[in-house]
Parts: sequence; C-alpha cells; structure tokens
Amino acid sequence: MTTELATDNCSFEWLDVTDPTKEELQGIAQQYGLHPASVSDCLQPGHLPKYEQFTGYTFIILRVYMTTAHDEADTVQALTGKIAIFVSERFIITIHRKPWEPIHTIQQTYVHTNRCTSPFHVLNVLVRTGLHTFDEPAVAIDEQLDLYEKKVFLTVRKEPLLKGLYFMKQKLEVMRRLLLHTYDIVDKMDREETANAYTRDVRDLYIKQKSLYDSMYENATHLLNLYFNISAQRTNETMRVLTIFSVFFMPLTFIAGIYGMNFRYMPELEWRHGYPVVLGAMAVVVIVIFFWFRRKRWM
Amino acid sequence: MTTELATDNCSFEWLDVTDPTKEELQGIAQQYGLHPASVSDCLQPGHLPKYEQFTGYTFIILRVYMTTAHDEADTVQALTGKIAIFVSERFIITIHRKPWEPIHTIQQTYVHTNRCTSPFHVLNVLVRTGLHTFDEPAVAIDEQLDLYEKKVFLTVRKEPLLKGLYFMKQKLEVMRRLLLHTYDIVDKMDREETANAYTRDVRDLYIKQKSLYDSMYENATHLLNLYFNISAQRTNETMRVLTIFSVFFMPLTFIAGIYGMNFRYMPELEWRHGYPVVLGAMAVVVIVIFFWFRRKRWM
Amino acid sequence: MTTELATDNCSFEWLDVTDPTKEELQGIAQQYGLHPASVSDCLQPGHLPKYEQFTGYTFIILRVYMTTAHDEADTVQALTGKIAIFVSERFIITIHRKPWEPIHTIQQTYVHTNRCTSPFHVLNVLVRTGLHTFDEPAVAIDEQLDLYEKKVFLTVRKEPLLKGLYFMKQKLEVMRRLLLHTYDIVDKMDREETANAYTRDVRDLYIKQKSLYDSMYENATHLLNLYFNISAQRTNETMRVLTIFSVFFMPLTFIAGIYGMNFRYMPELEWRHGYPVVLGAMAVVVIVIFFWFRRKRWM
Amino acid sequence: MTTELATDNCSFEWLDVTDPTKEELQGIAQQYGLHPASVSDCLQPGHLPKYEQFTGYTFIILRVYMTTAHDEADTVQALTGKIAIFVSERFIITIHRKPWEPIHTIQQTYVHTNRCTSPFHVLNVLVRTGLHTFDEPAVAIDEQLDLYEKKVFLTVRKEPLLKGLYFMKQKLEVMRRLLLHTYDIVDKMDREETANAYTRDVRDLYIKQKSLYDSMYENATHLLNLYFNISAQRTNETMRVLTIFSVFFMPLTFIAGIYGMNFRYMPELEWRHGYPVVLGAMAVVVIVIFFWFRRKRWM
Amino acid sequence: MTTELATDNCSFEWLDVTDPTKEELQGIAQQYGLHPASVSDCLQPGHLPKYEQFTGYTFIILRVYMTTAHDEADTVQALTGKIAIFVSERFIITIHRKPWEPIHTIQQTYVHTNRCTSPFHVLNVLVRTGLHTFDEPAVAIDEQLDLYEKKVFLTVRKEPLLKGLYFMKQKLEVMRRLLLHTYDIVDKMDREETANAYTRDVRDLYIKQKSLYDSMYENATHLLNLYFNISAQRTNETMRVLTIFSVFFMPLTFIAGIYGMNFRYMPELEWRHGYPVVLGAMAVVVIVIFFWFRRKRWM
Ligand SMILES: [Mg+2]
Ligand SMILES: [Mg+2]
Ligand SMILES: [Mg+2]
Ligand SMILES: [Mg+2]
Ligand SMILES: [Mg+2]
Ligand SMILES: [Mg+2]
Ligand SMILES: [Mg+2]
Ligand SMILES: [Mg+2]
Ligand SMILES: [Mg+2]
Ligand SMILES: [Mg+2]
Ligand SMILES: [Mg+2]
Ligand SMILES: [Mg+2]
Ligand SMILES: [Mg+2]
Ligand SMILES: [Mg+2]
Ligand SMILES: [Mg+2]
Ligand SMILES: [Mg+2]
Ligand SMILES: [Mg+2]
Ligand SMILES: [Mg+2]
Ligand SMILES: [Mg+2]
Ligand SMILES: [Mg+2]
Ligand SMILES: [Mg+2]
Ligand SMILES: [Mg+2]
Ligand SMILES: [Mg+2]
Ligand SMILES: [Mg+2]
Ligand SMILES: [Mg+2]
Ligand SMILES: [Mg+2]
Ligand SMILES: [Mg+2]
Ligand SMILES: [Mg+2]
Ligand SMILES: [Mg+2]
Ligand SMILES: [Mg+2]
Ligand SMILES: [Mg+2]
Repeated sequence: MTTELATDNCSFEWLDVTDPTKEELQGIAQQYGLHPASVSDCLQPGHLPKYEQFTGYTFIILRVYMTTAHDEADTVQALTGKIAIFVSERFIITIHRKPWEPIHTIQQTYVHTNRCTSPFHVLNVLVRTGLHTFDEPAVAIDEQLDLYEKKVFLTVRKEPLLKGLYFMKQKLEVMRRLLLHTYDIVDKMDREETANAYTRDVRDLYIKQKSLYDSMYENATHLLNLYFNISAQRTNETMRVLTIFSVFFMPLTFIAGIYGMNFRYMPELEWRHGYPVVLGAMAVVVIVIFFWFRRKRWM
Repeated sequence: MTTELATDNCSFEWLDVTDPTKEELQGIAQQYGLHPASVSDCLQPGHLPKYEQFTGYTFIILRVYMTTAHDEADTVQALTGKIAIFVSERFIITIHRKPWEPIHTIQQTYVHTNRCTSPFHVLNVLVRTGLHTFDEPAVAIDEQLDLYEKKVFLTVRKEPLLKGLYFMKQKLEVMRRLLLHTYDIVDKMDREETANAYTRDVRDLYIKQKSLYDSMYENATHLLNLYFNISAQRTNETMRVLTIFSVFFMPLTFIAGIYGMNFRYMPELEWRHGYPVVLGAMAVVVIVIFFWFRRKRWM
Repeated sequence: MTTELATDNCSFEWLDVTDPTKEELQGIAQQYGLHPASVSDCLQPGHLPKYEQFTGYTFIILRVYMTTAHDEADTVQALTGKIAIFVSERFIITIHRKPWEPIHTIQQTYVHTNRCTSPFHVLNVLVRTGLHTFDEPAVAIDEQLDLYEKKVFLTVRKEPLLKGLYFMKQKLEVMRRLLLHTYDIVDKMDREETANAYTRDVRDLYIKQKSLYDSMYENATHLLNLYFNISAQRTNETMRVLTIFSVFFMPLTFIAGIYGMNFRYMPELEWRHGYPVVLGAMAVVVIVIFFWFRRKRWM
Repeated sequence: MTTELATDNCSFEWLDVTDPTKEELQGIAQQYGLHPASVSDCLQPGHLPKYEQFTGYTFIILRVYMTTAHDEADTVQALTGKIAIFVSERFIITIHRKPWEPIHTIQQTYVHTNRCTSPFHVLNVLVRTGLHTFDEPAVAIDEQLDLYEKKVFLTVRKEPLLKGLYFMKQKLEVMRRLLLHTYDIVDKMDREETANAYTRDVRDLYIKQKSLYDSMYENATHLLNLYFNISAQRTNETMRVLTIFSVFFMPLTFIAGIYGMNFRYMPELEWRHGYPVVLGAMAVVVIVIFFWFRRKRWM
Repeated sequence: MTTELATDNCSFEWLDVTDPTKEELQGIAQQYGLHPASVSDCLQPGHLPKYEQFTGYTFIILRVYMTTAHDEADTVQALTGKIAIFVSERFIITIHRKPWEPIHTIQQTYVHTNRCTSPFHVLNVLVRTGLHTFDEPAVAIDEQLDLYEKKVFLTVRKEPLLKGLYFMKQKLEVMRRLLLHTYDIVDKMDREETANAYTRDVRDLYIKQKSLYDSMYENATHLLNLYFNISAQRTNETMRVLTIFSVFFMPLTFIAGIYGMNFRYMPELEWRHGYPVVLGAMAVVVIVIFFWFRRKRWM
C-alpha cells in the first residue's frame, strides 16, 4: 500500500509504502531511479541498520522497537521492525512491512504544519522517533530490574526470577548490539557538512539510549551474579544448621546407644545413679560443644 | 582436475582446479605468471583467509563452511574448506582440494547467462556465496540453542547437554575468529576505488553474519553459565531437604535412644503414662521445629 | 530566579539562573541569541554531559555530584545534578534547577576579586569545581571499601554487607560512565588553540578522578568476588566438621546398635568381658579414623 | 665463539656469535660501528622482541621457543631464547647465548646454495624460522588439550589434571604475549617500501600462529572452567545420593528406635501382630517417600 | 632543602629540592620563570605521572616505587613517591618530598664524570632509574607468587594466603595503572625529533616492565581463581567421604535398630541362628553398596 504523505505546499514528495510486493517495489525503484541492490535489501526482513550513499540518493535502514514482541523474544527480528528510507533533495520514501503509527504523527506534526523544510529534516525526525521507540522497553526493563532487585534481597525462593533475568539479559544484549549498528546512521547524518542543532540532538539522544542500555545490561549482569551467589550463601546457612544439629545429636545418640546395649555385665547399668550421671555427662557434652561453636562464631 | 568454466562469449577465462598436484599448480603458475609464494600458500591446507595484491593479479584465500564436519569438530581445518582465488582483469582461477558444489551453481547462474561482467564480479559472487555457507550452521546452532534453553529450564539431568554446549561454544569461537579474519577480504573488495552496490551488499552480509555469530556465542556463554548455576541451585534444594529431615529426626531419634537405655533405675520407664508423655514431648519438638522453619521460610 | 554575578568592573556578563520556567528560558534565549535546541536540552533533567559549538557561543552540559543522593541511588539523575552553561567572549550563563553553592564561592573568589579574565576562565573554574564535587563521594566510598575489606576478612556473617557492596558497585558504575561522558568537555576545552596551564590542570584533575573511580570500581568487584568466595570456603569448613563428626560417630553408633539387638542367642552379650572388649573395639575404630584423617590432613 | 657463515661467493658477510663475552661483543661493535645501547641490549638475557632502526643498520631482537623448557616453565626467559640480529646491506650478525641449530640449516639451505640474495633475505628466513619454532609446542599443547578434554568428560578424579591445565594456561598466556611483542618486527619488515611475497608470507605465518595460540588459550580457559563446574556438579550428585539415603533411613530408624524404648507400659509391644504391623508401616513410609522423590524427579 | 648537583665544568644547572615549603617553591619558580600551575602540581602529593610542555621548559611528574610501603598498601600514594622535574636546555630541577637516594647515584655516575651531555640526558637517566625502581617489587611479588603457587597445590589450609593474594592483586592493579599513566612520558621523550638510542632504551624498559606487571596480574588472577576452585573441589571430596560413610552405615544401623525393638512376638529373635543370619545380611548389604560405588567410580 503506497500513500503520498507530503501536502501540496510542500517542496518535496514523501511516499510511504506499507507491506509492498516485490513488483510494487520494483515499480517505485524504476520511477525514482533506485538501485536493484537497495530493493533487494528492502526485501530482507532481518537486515541490520545501515547508511548507504548512492549517486542521487541516500539509502537508510532503520530498526525500531515494536511493542508486539512477546516476553522471551531475543532476536533482532522478533524485537524490532525494519524501516527502509530513501532520501534525496526532492523526495523521501519510507518502506515497512507492518504499519508504523509514528509515521502519521510525524506527518501531522511536521509536514501538515509546514515545519518540514526538506526531506533530510523528515529523515532526522524519523531517526529521532525511531530512537525514542527504545524509551518504552527501557522504562519497562528498568522497572523489572528494580522489582527483581527487591525480590533478590528478600531472598524469595522462586524460579521464574531466573528465567526472567535470563531473557531480560538476552534482550538487552540484542538491543545494545542494535544500537551499536545504528551509530553509523547517527554519525553520518551529523557529519561536518550537514550537522546542525537537530542532528546533534539526535546524537545526544543516541548517546543517552546507548548509555542507558549499557547501564541496564551491566545491572542485569550484576543482579544475575548476585542472585546465584546469594543462593550459594543460603546453601552455606543450610549447611551450618545441619552441622550444628548433627554435632550436638551424634555424640548424645551414641552415648544413649552405649547404654542401650544388652551386655549381661555392664556395671554402670546397675548403679543407683547411673541414669542421672549419664544425663549429666550428656549435658556436659552439650555445653562443651556449645562453647566450641561460640568460639568458632557459629552460634 | 582443471576445468574451464567461462563460456566462449565471455571476455575472460575462469579456470577451476580441484585437488591439484604440486606439479599441476606449478604449471598453472608458470602459464599465468603467479608468484611461487602464492603456490606454496595454495598447498597449505590450514591457511587462514587473506587478501594479497600482486603486480598483475590479486590473490585471495577464502574459507567456507563445509557440511562434512562432525559434531565435535572445533578447528579451522575441520570446520571449513579453503578456496584459493587468483583474479585479474583477464582471468579468474579457483583452486580447492574438495569439490565445492556452489562453483557450478555460480557458473550456471552468472557465467552461462552472461550476467558476469568481469572476473571481479565473479570474485564478489564467490565471496558472497562463501559467506552464505555460514547460514546453514547458524540455523542449526540457533535451533540447538533454543532446544538447550528449553532443557535447561526444565532442569533435565542429562550430561550430554554439557558436552554439547562445550563443543558448540568451541565451534562458535572458531567461526567468529574465522569471520574476523575474513573481514580484510570484504573490506579490500569494498574499498573506495572499487566499491559498488554489490560489494556493499557483501559487506552488509558480512556484518550480519558477524553479528549473528557474536550473538550466538554470547548466548551459548550465558546458557552454559546458567546451566552450571541452576545445577548449583539444585544442590541448594537438595541440602534443604536433607537438613529439614535431619533436624526433625535427630532430636526424635535421640529421645527414643534415651528411653532405649537399659539402666535399672530409670523412673520414667516405670510410669503409667511414660510412653504417651514421651510421644507428646516428641510432638512438641516437631511443632517447635516446624514453626522455627516457617520463620526461616524454609518450609 | 536570575542573578547577575559579574561585578561592574568586569568586562563580561555572568547570568546565573536557578530553576527557570520554560518562558524565562525562552526570554533569555531570545536576548542572547541562543538556539531553541539548546533551550530544549536545558529542560531535560537527565541530559548527559556534552560540549557543543554554536555560531557565536559554546553550550556545555555539566553534571556534578549532589550530596542529597540517598544510599541506594544508582542512576545518573539521582546521583548528579545538571549545570547548563552558555559561554561566549561577552557572556557566561549558568542554568541549574537546584541551587548550587559553589557558584557563589567562585563568584567571591574569582569574579569579585577580578581574578577572572574572561568568561572562558570562569568556565574552566566551573568545570574544575564540578570535577571536584566527585572528591567527597570518592572519600566516602574509599572509607566504606576499607571498612568492608576489614569486615570481609573478619568473616562477619551479616547480610547488609552484600547489599551495601552491590549498591556501591552500581553507584561506581554510573559515576565512571558519567566521567567518561565528561571527557569530551575537558578535551575540547584543552584543545590546541585554547589550551593553557589552567585547562591542562583540569585535564590532570579529570585523569585523576577517572583513575580513582576506575580503581575503586575494580576494588569493589574484587571485594564482592572475595566475599562470595570466602563464604563458599566457610561452607567447606562446615562440611569438614560435619564429615569428621559423622565419620567418627556412625561406626560407633552402629556397633552400639549391634549389641542393642535383642537376639536370644548372642554369645558376646554373655561374655564376662564383652562390654569392655566392645569399648576397646570402639577405641580402636576411633584411633584408626583419627590417623586416617591425619594422613588426609583433615585434622 | 664467532663463526663466519657466508661463503666466498656471497656479496655479504654473515657473522654468527655464540655466547660472547662483553669484550668480544664490544670488539664486534667497534668493527661494525654498532651503537653501545645495542650491545647492552644484547647482554640482557630477558629482553623482549623489538625492531630498531639505527643509522647504517637495523637491530632486531627475536625470541624463539627453546625445547629445553621444563613442564612448569611460565616465564619469557624460561620458555624462549633470545636471538639478537644486526643487519645492513653489507652484513648480518646473529648473536645468541645458547647454540641454535636452525642457524646451520639456514646456512646450508640458503647461503651455501646461493639462494640468499641479501642480508635482509637472510633476516626474513630467520624470522620465519623463529616463528616456526612455535609449531612444536603448539602441537604438543593441542594434543594435551585433546587429552584433557577426554579426561574431563570421563570425569576422572585426578588432581594432576588441574596442575597441568594451570601451567598450560600460564604458558599460553606468556607465549601469546610474546607473539604480540613480535608483531612489530613482522610489521616493520613487511612495510610498504620493503614488502615482497616473502615478507607477506612471514606475516601470514605470524597471523596463523597468533590465531592458533589465542584459540588454544581460549580453549584452555573454557576447559578449566568446565573442569571446575563438572566437579561442582559431581558434588550435586553426591548430595543427592546422601539425601536420598538419609530421607529413606531416618524415619525408618526413628520408628525402630520408638519400639526399642523400654517403657513398661507400651501396648503395641504386647500385640500379637505388633511387629508385622510396624514393618508394614515402614513399607508405607518407603513407598510414600519413593513417590515424593519421583514427583521431584530425584529418582 | 635545595642542593646544586651540577659541577662547575657542566654546561647546565641541576637543582635538587627536597621537601620544599610553598615559599621556597615560589622563589624557585620566580627565579626560573616557572608557571604557577606547575608549582601547584608540585604541591599535590597524589598527582599522577604527566608530561607537559611549557614555553621555555618541560614539566614532568614521575612516580617511583618507594620501598617504605607496608604490606597492605594499595593506593598510588602509599606505594609510590612523586618526583617533579623541570627541564630546559639550561637547567634541570628535581623536586621531591622524601629524599630519593638514586638522585645521588646519578649525580656521581653521570654528572661528576661528565658523562652527562645535557639536561635532557639527565632526564632520560632519571626516568630510566624511576622505571627500574619497579624491579624490586616485581622480584618480590614474583617470588611470593611462586610460593603461593606451591602452597595452593599443596592444599595447605591457611587463610593468610587469601588475604595475601587479595592485597597482591590490588597492588598489581595500582602499579599497572601507574605504568599506564607513565607511558605518555616515555612516548613523548622518544618522539621522532628527540629520539635516540637512549630514549629507545627507556621505551624498551617501559615495555618490559608493563609486560611483566601485566603478566603477574594475570597470574595472580588465575591463582586466586584456582585457589577458590581447589577449595570447592575439597568440599567435593569431603562430601564424598561423608556420603560413602552414610550410605554404608545408615542401612546397617537401621537393621540393628529393627532387632533392637522390644516386641514380644518377633520370631527372628528366637531363632538359633538369628544373630549370624542378620550379620550375614549386613555383610551382603555392604557388598552390594561396595559394588554400586565401584560402578559409580566413587571408590
Ligand atoms: Mg555481551
Ligand atoms: Mg554486544
Ligand atoms: Mg556509555
Ligand atoms: Mg558499554
Ligand atoms: Mg558499561
Ligand atoms: Mg560489570
Ligand atoms: Mg550497574
Ligand atoms: Mg575470541
Ligand atoms: Mg556486531
Ligand atoms: Mg561481540
Ligand atoms: Mg556476557
Ligand atoms: Mg545473548
Ligand atoms: Mg562473563
Ligand atoms: Mg562499566
Ligand atoms: Mg585510568
Ligand atoms: Mg578500568
Ligand atoms: Mg578485576
Ligand atoms: Mg583494585
Ligand atoms: Mg590474558
Ligand atoms: Mg596478554
Ligand atoms: Mg586471531
Ligand atoms: Mg582471542
Ligand atoms: Mg571465552
Ligand atoms: Mg575456544
Ligand atoms: Mg584491571
Ligand atoms: Mg587498569
Ligand atoms: Mg604487555
Ligand atoms: Mg593484560
Ligand atoms: Mg585470565
Ligand atoms: Mg598468567
Ligand atoms: Mg569471573
């Protein structure tokens, strides 16, 4: 589906194409003089972000976060959608498989109102909007991290925490890498000849997003390590309880076992005070062990 | 075995050589004016990818994934095959020890159909095809990773998982390194003077493959760590069960041991209600321990 | 709130603006010819440090440590405050949301006393002062690290240590990253054309702070690892105690159990010296195990 | 000991010096116009590889693997020997403390046969030969790694494995670093002005060796981690066996203990079927625990 | 305290200043035309190494290892002392708080003997000597590492090892970082215009020291990891002993417990051969378990 988005009083054309067939694309390519290689790039759903200068036009592939991604998504294709952009002094063409809402917002705010001054200005707004799509998952992940932090320190014994953290880390890994591949676009748009306050603004945004995702990735790594280590420490505590009980009861049970033997000739068994004496001996054992544990700082 | 692959109406020669002897190679070298050093490189089976400019021709060593590799293969030589390529304005020579099917596909699609315009065009197609050989193992490894992920979270207790992940990581390590060594070829072909839409396409493909293998390597590392840590957590759980049982039964067994002693003078043994009182005392011990565990959140 | 800080005998203006409204900012922007993009940057509370050259003026965003941060703060915004600075040959404008005490100290020491020679000199002093705000948390964190080190080696069994170290590491991570983003400002101020002994001084200070925070981050990482590993080693020790007790008492208790059986025909029970012989056998078991442990170096 | 290795029909001199005294060295230095600083470098046994251009000659320090190194050697000096080389258009001087066999092979193959064309050709052959000395330990280490891999997966319980892997990793660390320091020599010899097919060949060899050692280092690291983690998993298995036995026998032993008590009034003891009923109860306990373990997937 | 170290027949002045007051420093600064910023750097005890070019002179801050550092020292200031150096064609001024012996050795060997040719030659000797101060701690740390290695493999159970390794690693971390900061000095002294055999010598020394400290740091890291892992493996061994004993004795003790029950009707107790039959049954249990352990390779 192809829509013309630029208004009449605009000095340029903006063609927005949703889910085109190969034939539609080739038609557009012929009309605007686009290279077949670009058309083939448009058709690859998993293509990574890039900035490519052709004679007469610039070809950009942008990847933006798509909110339809399910919880365990951890590939570039599952998490993000591709926006292919052809831009020259005269026209801008945006191509995407799924409809992308912000296109219309940009048209309303920048093109209808004549705030657009050139196709490159529209490109700049598109890239900025694309980078802003990473805001929403960042907020969600950050909240999840805070929640996980709280849970980890409460030492809740729930496995979902583990799975959640694992997939969060995978997702962050992919998104960091994607931002890395996006750098080239931001840098080329903000190169000396074409830089202006708006391209620098996009660069600022890029740096902030990269820094935020790096930070969250580090945080997820730290938290995952902490989680495992805290659970190792709990083993430690469990061991200590087991050992304390065993050390107290094994000697006592052994003593009881001794006087449970059925030998005919065991003088202690006949003594008047044999029983209380043995109980006293047991008490002594308990006290000795107690102070030994105290000295070892186990109790 | 040497075959001429270029058709008559081609402006260049394409010599394809399979498993040559040293003598054959030297003959070709003499005929086309190739340097003895290149001939010696052709004869080293484990040579890494490279791009070398000689006067009059370019010498490229490409390594492509070979599907014959067994499961525990983890060296450059076991996983990949070497394609040596000599290319000039007039000729292209491809040399390989094992037959490589895609050569014929390329000949059919590009040379027979006259879509080839120059030996360098054929070179570009060869490199692209070489990079595409990494698609198949990538898909296989990705599926294996998904399978392993599922198994890890199901906490299946099978050792093969471990061995499989170890060799997968080794394999990914080698293939990442190989892609790294391949970068020079892609970069030199796409240098300013010779760059065109097709060489940039190969660069895109390279970036995608590198990113994919990096991503899978990270994923394998995370999964291996997770696997070990989950198994450590299982130890934790085992410990907890052992400790709970021990803490309950050690005091009870000790009490039973006390009244199993054979002292002549043990007043409790003679009491009418000695037995039920002791059973009651045991119940109290159980209840106290139960609430203590509750407070500790162990039960 | 806007204050004029430069004195009459100064050759330039210094406008200090605290917590401005959007309208105030736009008024100032119009008066001094500032670009709308800079005004929008001023309004973003979490903006990272940057240095931007406009025609006619330079725009700097500085982030300084604010002492109001609570203990578990671990984001750029929670730990630091933003100082936006516009500087030209004729004027310097400082904009911040919260009042920042050092501004007044700088005015007293450098502007009132006429030690200021230009707005760029004031800028240099501001950046240096901003970097010095990291001194205080560095001293605090360093003391905490020393304290934690002592505690770790005393093997105190307290969980707060863990939480404290985790948040310290997060904080250090954020502050290192912030210093990294600040580098561009320091480097641009100290570029060849404008470098002087004072800008080099700021560079020295930057290097020192970066090095210090890197060092503390490494230290925190080492300490956290050590802490977990020491606690794993304590598990080791606990295990050893448990095993030693079990290995001694299990055979003894078993022997006692044997002679506690009620078989009618058990010749040993009738022997005159059955009881002492069994006690002797137990002593032999103890001695054998003792020497076995000795040889294993467990006792 | 100084030997003249170049034959009469050679256009240059080749002086080979074995284990020289300081005085011998100074004599040679005076005769050939060598700088005192180079002489002092020749005398330092642990000097790292370097390439230094003097007026009139080039000074190279090469380090080659020496097969006399014992198993736990892990320093540059213990693993490798130093070859100091002075080379100009007219002469090449090789200086080493221990005799180095390959010198004579090179003389036989390249100098006697007049395949040498210049001192720089000899230098190139020397560097290539030096890099090839790393082949032998690479093969040995690779075989050891394969052996260790097999042992690790067979879960053999032998400590030498650990010590062997530790020293292997140390050795690989040192050799990787040494190769890193050797890069400068290879790169300077293969610089644009002097590059030819032979210097590029040495560069290829260098890249192969570096890649091989990097790969083996990674492999050793992975294997060491795996080894520790597998041994942690074995603890897991041990724990499970202990826990299963304890959970089965602790309740049973407790029940037996109950009916081993000597209370006068214990009605069960008098029952006709008390004994078989208790045995039946024990069987029920066993069955319940068995199905509980089944559900937990521990059996 | 200020001393003139250059002799009369020297073409330059060498002023050595020990522990100067601020006033002394300002006097010297005025006399030699030094910038106030340098004076302020001289007064900061923790200043990191740097190389700064002023008009008319060069200002260097060198940090050298001071042997007075105690065992747990792990900061730049505790481990090293600062030497500030001002150098021009006419003079060299060395400033330090504590007396530094090597100054006098240099004066004796290079200045008194007229081997000095210029202040920059003296500077070169000073930097070389400063780098050589790292020899002594390197030897000490290397010996300690060898000792620790031996202890780790002897599995000695001593906690000081841990503390020692931790502080050694901290120390190595600081010293590596310091060497990193020193690189700029070495590199600037050895820049193309001023490079000679002596500055290259200092660069060699720098590379050797950096490589040595990197190597020792890696070694300490490996050893620390190994230490913890070996201690985890010991837990493994302890567990195995505990489990073996438990698995043997728990069934035996249970059987003994069965026949220790006091039921009136227990036919086995009345049998003539009840006792030896039960002992036989116990022997069978022992044999079955023994072979089960054998198959599991635990015994
Ligand atoms: Mg990563
Ligand atoms: Mg990444
Ligand atoms: Mg960042
Ligand atoms: Mg990062
Ligand atoms: Mg980071
Ligand atoms: Mg980290
Ligand atoms: Mg963090
Ligand atoms: Mg690698
Ligand atoms: Mg990538
Ligand atoms: Mg990567
Ligand atoms: Mg990772
Ligand atoms: Mg990943
Ligand atoms: Mg890691
Ligand atoms: Mg970081
Ligand atoms: Mg640093
Ligand atoms: Mg660092
Ligand atoms: Mg570290
Ligand atoms: Mg540190
Ligand atoms: Mg390393
Ligand atoms: Mg290294
Ligand atoms: Mg490599
Ligand atoms: Mg590597
Ligand atoms: Mg690795
Ligand atoms: Mg590997
Ligand atoms: Mg470090
Ligand atoms: Mg460092
Ligand atoms: Mg190094
Ligand atoms: Mg290193
Ligand atoms: Mg390491
Ligand atoms: Mg090492
Ligand atoms: Mg680690």
